[in-house]
Amino acid sequence: MSTLITGGKVVSAQGVVEADVLYDGETITAVLAPGTAQAIGIAPVRTIDATGKYVLPGGIDVHTHMDMPFGGTSSVDDFETGTRAAAWGGTTTIVDFAVQKKGGSLQEAIDTWHGKAEGSACIDYGLHAILADVNDTSLKEMDVLVDQGITSFKLFMAYPGVFLSTDSEIMRAMHRASDNGATIMMHAENGTAIDEIVTRAIAEGHTEPKYHGLTRPVALEQEAVNRAIAMATVTKAPLYIVHLSSTPALETVTAARDAGKNVFAETCPQYLFLDESEMARPGFEGAKYVCTPALRPKEHQAQLWRGLRTNDLSVVATDHCPFCFATDKQLGKDDFRAIPNGLPGVEHRMDLLHRGVTMGEISLARWVEIASTTPARMFGMYPKKGVIAPGADADIVIYDPEAQQHVSAKTHHMNVDYSVYEGWNLTGKAETVISRGTVVLENDQFSGEPGRGQFVKRSLSQYLL
Amino acid sequence: MSTLITGGKVVSAQGVVEADVLYDGETITAVLAPGTAQAIGIAPVRTIDATGKYVLPGGIDVHTHMDMPFGGTSSVDDFETGTRAAAWGGTTTIVDFAVQKKGGSLQEAIDTWHGKAEGSACIDYGLHAILADVNDTSLKEMDVLVDQGITSFKLFMAYPGVFLSTDSEIMRAMHRASDNGATIMMHAENGTAIDEIVTRAIAEGHTEPKYHGLTRPVALEQEAVNRAIAMATVTKAPLYIVHLSSTPALETVTAARDAGKNVFAETCPQYLFLDESEMARPGFEGAKYVCTPALRPKEHQAQLWRGLRTNDLSVVATDHCPFCFATDKQLGKDDFRAIPNGLPGVEHRMDLLHRGVTMGEISLARWVEIASTTPARMFGMYPKKGVIAPGADADIVIYDPEAQQHVSAKTHHMNVDYSVYEGWNLTGKAETVISRGTVVLENDQFSGEPGRGQFVKRSLSQYLL
Amino acid sequence: MSTLITGGKVVSAQGVVEADVLYDGETITAVLAPGTAQAIGIAPVRTIDATGKYVLPGGIDVHTHMDMPFGGTSSVDDFETGTRAAAWGGTTTIVDFAVQKKGGSLQEAIDTWHGKAEGSACIDYGLHAILADVNDTSLKEMDVLVDQGITSFKLFMAYPGVFLSTDSEIMRAMHRASDNGATIMMHAENGTAIDEIVTRAIAEGHTEPKYHGLTRPVALEQEAVNRAIAMATVTKAPLYIVHLSSTPALETVTAARDAGKNVFAETCPQYLFLDESEMARPGFEGAKYVCTPALRPKEHQAQLWRGLRTNDLSVVATDHCPFCFATDKQLGKDDFRAIPNGLPGVEHRMDLLHRGVTMGEISLARWVEIASTTPARMFGMYPKKGVIAPGADADIVIYDPEAQQHVSAKTHHMNVDYSVYEGWNLTGKAETVISRGTVVLENDQFSGEPGRGQFVKRSLSQYLL
Amino acid sequence: MSTLITGGKVVSAQGVVEADVLYDGETITAVLAPGTAQAIGIAPVRTIDATGKYVLPGGIDVHTHMDMPFGGTSSVDDFETGTRAAAWGGTTTIVDFAVQKKGGSLQEAIDTWHGKAEGSACIDYGLHAILADVNDTSLKEMDVLVDQGITSFKLFMAYPGVFLSTDSEIMRAMHRASDNGATIMMHAENGTAIDEIVTRAIAEGHTEPKYHGLTRPVALEQEAVNRAIAMATVTKAPLYIVHLSSTPALETVTAARDAGKNVFAETCPQYLFLDESEMARPGFEGAKYVCTPALRPKEHQAQLWRGLRTNDLSVVATDHCPFCFATDKQLGKDDFRAIPNGLPGVEHRMDLLHRGVTMGEISLARWVEIASTTPARMFGMYPKKGVIAPGADADIVIYDPEAQQHVSAKTHHMNVDYSVYEGWNLTGKAETVISRGTVVLENDQFSGEPGRGQFVKRSLSQYLL
Repeated sequence: MSTLITGGKVVSAQGVVEADVLYDGETITAVLAPGTAQAIGIAPVRTIDATGKYVLPGGIDVHTHMDMPFGGTSSVDDFETGTRAAAWGGTTTIVDFAVQKKGGSLQEAIDTWHGKAEGSACIDYGLHAILADVNDTSLKEMDVLVDQGITSFKLFMAYPGVFLSTDSEIMRAMHRASDNGATIMMHAENGTAIDEIVTRAIAEGHTEPKYHGLTRPVALEQEAVNRAIAMATVTKAPLYIVHLSSTPALETVTAARDAGKNVFAETCPQYLFLDESEMARPGFEGAKYVCTPALRPKEHQAQLWRGLRTNDLSVVATDHCPFCFATDKQLGKDDFRAIPNGLPGVEHRMDLLHRGVTMGEISLARWVEIASTTPARMFGMYPKKGVIAPGADADIVIYDPEAQQHVSAKTHHMNVDYSVYEGWNLTGKAETVISRGTVVLENDQFSGEPGRGQFVKRSLSQYLL
Repeated sequence: MSTLITGGKVVSAQGVVEADVLYDGETITAVLAPGTAQAIGIAPVRTIDATGKYVLPGGIDVHTHMDMPFGGTSSVDDFETGTRAAAWGGTTTIVDFAVQKKGGSLQEAIDTWHGKAEGSACIDYGLHAILADVNDTSLKEMDVLVDQGITSFKLFMAYPGVFLSTDSEIMRAMHRASDNGATIMMHAENGTAIDEIVTRAIAEGHTEPKYHGLTRPVALEQEAVNRAIAMATVTKAPLYIVHLSSTPALETVTAARDAGKNVFAETCPQYLFLDESEMARPGFEGAKYVCTPALRPKEHQAQLWRGLRTNDLSVVATDHCPFCFATDKQLGKDDFRAIPNGLPGVEHRMDLLHRGVTMGEISLARWVEIASTTPARMFGMYPKKGVIAPGADADIVIYDPEAQQHVSAKTHHMNVDYSVYEGWNLTGKAETVISRGTVVLENDQFSGEPGRGQFVKRSLSQYLL
Repeated sequence: MSTLITGGKVVSAQGVVEADVLYDGETITAVLAPGTAQAIGIAPVRTIDATGKYVLPGGIDVHTHMDMPFGGTSSVDDFETGTRAAAWGGTTTIVDFAVQKKGGSLQEAIDTWHGKAEGSACIDYGLHAILADVNDTSLKEMDVLVDQGITSFKLFMAYPGVFLSTDSEIMRAMHRASDNGATIMMHAENGTAIDEIVTRAIAEGHTEPKYHGLTRPVALEQEAVNRAIAMATVTKAPLYIVHLSSTPALETVTAARDAGKNVFAETCPQYLFLDESEMARPGFEGAKYVCTPALRPKEHQAQLWRGLRTNDLSVVATDHCPFCFATDKQLGKDDFRAIPNGLPGVEHRMDLLHRGVTMGEISLARWVEIASTTPARMFGMYPKKGVIAPGADADIVIYDPEAQQHVSAKTHHMNVDYSVYEGWNLTGKAETVISRGTVVLENDQFSGEPGRGQFVKRSLSQYLL
Repeated sequence: MSTLITGGKVVSAQGVVEADVLYDGETITAVLAPGTAQAIGIAPVRTIDATGKYVLPGGIDVHTHMDMPFGGTSSVDDFETGTRAAAWGGTTTIVDFAVQKKGGSLQEAIDTWHGKAEGSACIDYGLHAILADVNDTSLKEMDVLVDQGITSFKLFMAYPGVFLSTDSEIMRAMHRASDNGATIMMHAENGTAIDEIVTRAIAEGHTEPKYHGLTRPVALEQEAVNRAIAMATVTKAPLYIVHLSSTPALETVTAARDAGKNVFAETCPQYLFLDESEMARPGFEGAKYVCTPALRPKEHQAQLWRGLRTNDLSVVATDHCPFCFATDKQLGKDDFRAIPNGLPGVEHRMDLLHRGVTMGEISLARWVEIASTTPARMFGMYPKKGVIAPGADADIVIYDPEAQQHVSAKTHHMNVDYSVYEGWNLTGKAETVISRGTVVLENDQFSGEPGRGQFVKRSLSQYLL
């Protein structure tokens, strides 16, 4: 039942080596000097020729929202469509957010999300929990969830009245995380202050999509990042800032990291490749680009790439949260506040980051590190995930760096009616995708099965010394 | 009716010049080359010999709390005893805080405070307003108060449930200040987060005074300072941080000022001369030193002096808020949370800062600048106050830099039963104090009259370009 | 013989007061409340009406090069033409640089410069010494010069083979300054590294004026500033960076000042108002703008204004060093290296900085501070110079803030055939200029006499606590 | 001829995996899931049981000075004794410095060093070249050496008159490196300024060893680091700071890296574990600790560990440069200037860094990264060296993390009569060391052969995107 991938360049976070990769069943069993397999007696059942291709550990997207109720509707990819699209793009693991309801328990949220994923997911998945209601019960549940392999808890400094946790609640959750070792994930924007700016904008009659961006200044992202770091410092909780989008916020993270703190940050492809001008597109087109934090002025992009190079940004995830333009996004036709916040993205993360490689922004090794290896280590899945090594899950992508693709909503595999990269031409494409030993994509055919994806029970972050 | 002060060294924020000072009625009329008065025909009614002394513009203490209800009691100096003590120490103007009640109006607060001061104050006084209840009405009142010469409004990020304003309220007040030009004064500590730490400390049985300090980490002062600056940045409101006490907070202010923002900060003598070890005195003695922010570890003091030298700290005020040890402070005998927060200080500010001069921390000119000239300019009283110049109020201190004094509750003039500087020997003392042309202190006799002090109607801050 | 200036607004570094100013002979004798002179018996011989005008302490330009041999020619203003032009522009004191010759003594340099100035200068002048040859003898002479009132010594990190001092020589001079209290002034650019870039540019055939700028990167100004600060730190010598021109250099000074070091910096009007594009003017026109450091990209200007506001830049001086375009500048027709470095500027400093006031970059008080008061204190001339106060020299400018002037080489008073501000319209003009009690400019007539200017014997810097 | 290492934990820069490692001849041929070798048909000739042990890529020490003439003597380890000691400590590759003579060619230096190493080295070695005489010829030789696999060139800002390159020379070398891609290595201390301090110390009669440290302030290391970075910035040359020792220098590197510059830095075990107090040992004992930069005050150590964690410090090397105390060091008995600068260290680097692991300062993965993987990538040897991967050289260390060792000159394998860690007990020890497929250390027996070590022809740095 063993398969040998021959002739490829195995890319790891450390660099590139020419090697053959053998897997058997669901597991990688050997990494071999090229062409030596036969000599040492290995007789694989199948051989896949990867000559001229990269052999990568499968991509890991640690920030997705499948089938999530939000803003009066739900994100339009479910675990089946979403993970299928992910696999098309070379991602073999996602970590999705289970949303606690106000008044509900964390366990209910996890159970609900297990229900959404089981029988549907085409690739493996983990779960984070969104702590929407911090109270004595939910704090105790944190410990229970850690034992269940849910070791990261997201809090919001944005969305007052919906998800926002007060500083008091944040402190309590952080104190608990400090005790049980879990990672606190933070949406760091001062939503309370933003709401005041929004109120003034609306009062002045500004209802178009671009005001979504104009009412969320970068100073209030920096503020929240600094505040989260201060509270993490006094509680000694590990902190991971999600979807960091701007230079001042990055500088604050950089300073904390230079001071040796356990503070990490993620950015997303949309902040690396798109800018605020998209929200000012004519008509209501700008609504397609409404996400939170908002897209920023173009000059922030170079700094985010810098942060990725210098490891002040550790991870690139997508914050995949798609809403259809023809229907969902129209809710905000007359008032930008009612536009569901979120973009589709799970399918193209690996390719967009490969574009970063061809642009000279990051190296091949760093590509794999920020898209697979660090996500695995950050969220307690290494070395089962995130690496081509014996004993690891056979989550393998054979990536053709020369393949051309044309991005379009007409052809993409996400269940959404538009693409924020519509018409872009990308160089590089996942040619063959293997999920725990099963080829799920080959010859432009998807052969993965809904329900084959398994829940990944995660340990604590492996970045905490 | 004119008086000539001869032979002294006139110290200004710019430097020292030897000059004679003539005042007539309530106003300075001339500054003259030494000994030239007669030659040019001036025949004063009285001459005061200031040979070997400094001639200073009277001290201005912009942070006092006279007769303020707080923590179930009231500060024990009223406008009569408090301003008398101030005058003994060479301070000729205070700016006190009128406290809005929850549910009450700002105007009521101002009226109440006018009532407290009129007929009682021995020296001139201005008023700040504490915005304890931000709402549509009180926001509109801000404009009215500005017209009345109350041009600065204090908000609290500390004291949840008492004074704390939410970020939403702060934004609204700042937006208004941005429109009407008023200065927002901020108590910058994250009281919400602090309360969580306090709760844990109490749960662990820690009730002694020193836990007041141990539960208020400097990281949460830095956090609040950064947050206040972020909101001031987006609203374009002028910001003045009161009683800054620690290095990280100072560094954040420094960075904002280096970026050219209208951000200012004040520190207090207690943060320059006392440290957290005082709160750990045996028995309940530590309660005498309980103020907020708490006294810090000793190493912060050098940085505060640095900030005073480099103008990252603009002002030294006292936060004078005295409570008697034998009675008021005892409220917290069993629980540090119940100790009324505050120290006596209005009397010794000028002398303690003169100690900074003799220690080589600041120059004579800087002494006058941070204690009188900048307070006047910062709060819209210049050149009526804060300077020895023709046309200015004759608020003049003749200061003997060689005089010795011994600080003790037995001999001080504040209406409180202890001194945080008990037993200290200080070099330098206000010898003669003149308030708007009237000698109120001379030959160790106080001759000021309650009620002679007048309300100072202030303009907007003169530090806003 | 007394004169009374009435009705003006007296601007000081602290702010503006309405006051009348009386001077008698060479000295200010009184500053009086408006209109009170007569009442107190003063009967001036002459009265000057300054209603609607500013009354300023005369400008002090601490960086001029009169009649200085350089680059195979000499600067074209001598002490007579240069100080006359200065007076036209409201400057009543200059401090010029006496240049030590290699192999010569410092005393010779000072004697030579006294010879140039005596009998020629129309206004008062001080002298700095350029230490071009650091050796045991010249180090000893430093002490002697300090006693003679020459308390500041300039070193160069630029101009290898001409003025450059090695780090060894700088250390020795700084050690001496640390002992005798003198201020080390530094031209901070790494001339050695720059020469390598120049060599490559020439080798590539780049000889036009604009390459003067392209071969002097800001990184090498920052480098030299940092190096000078490091050496000043270890030797404990006071340091004053001359003609700072760029953001990274400013940030390095800012950090040193934030750390409480005795580090100061000056910038010049040309760096505030002109940018590198001038050097790329068609033909050889760019040579008019060749100075060192070179004009920088436009974005540096905002940072320099910021530095002036926040006192990270303490002084604005001109580095006045004019060369005629028709003759001197032509030396570099075929090779930018041979263009004499320097611009004319002594005449318009006060007006250009007043433009900064009208642009909202600095306040009136700060204008006077950076142009007169701080220069006086920095270089040991206060309160004789730099302030309107009794006892001070009657160096007074009555400045009309509404007057219009058109800058042109046709009409300016400097002895040079072009202006870098040709055609600019400026608002504000010195109407009456008084030098030690003598009116030298009035009704657009200059009545100063060459030789009336006196040498100012200076004390040590008054900024050293 | 194949060997299988079974049961160990393979530590890489990415993390730890349990895997078996197969090598054949000189090369690793497979990394296998534990216990699977037999199943897939592999029949090794030999099996080494590594149960409970770490399996590491062999250590790489990129900073050694074997048999180097210096200070009137020569370092006392030659390639045979030095590489043997290295191997005892788990290091399987060194990169030594070939020293150009003034007036001599680079090629001569390289030839001389090949001569020293060939027939002597017990493990593989690369060469850096010390550019002691920058001139047109040696600049051209840089290109030739790059082709020969010598891709890094060291310059000195210290040691005037011996190794110091002027800024002019540095610029020229950097320009060349920018063109040919080589890395400039820099000894960053301002030796010129230091010499002035030394001169004063000697003049004051201070000749004891501790004055070696007191005359080399950290400000002058920071200065040189900043200067090197500035020149690297303008020339676009890759820069690697050797033996960084202090906080301010680290902060400057950190800022450059945060700005995305190709700037890297190394520190050494002596700066992590020893401090300046060692130089003040009684009698002449302090001379044992005289190296350059000097050992620093203890508080710098925590910052260096921080830098290692955050990758602002990329590499730990030894600067191994041993001199015997009984003879060589005595040269400076009466004058610290004559003490040969340098410490022995090549043997204990891996163990001291493992101590950092047990102290909680760095993770296992980071240990391998800074001691082997990054050195390999930084200096163009990856993936031949620095990684356990198929195709890599079989340079493997089986490390026993529980073994105890007692450090002493009596038992160490370096050819020097003292140890700076005399009497220290260390936990962890290289148990088996394999150099290109040959076991050279096993069962506490060294079986390596002088001359078996080969020259490693290196490519350009793999850290330059």
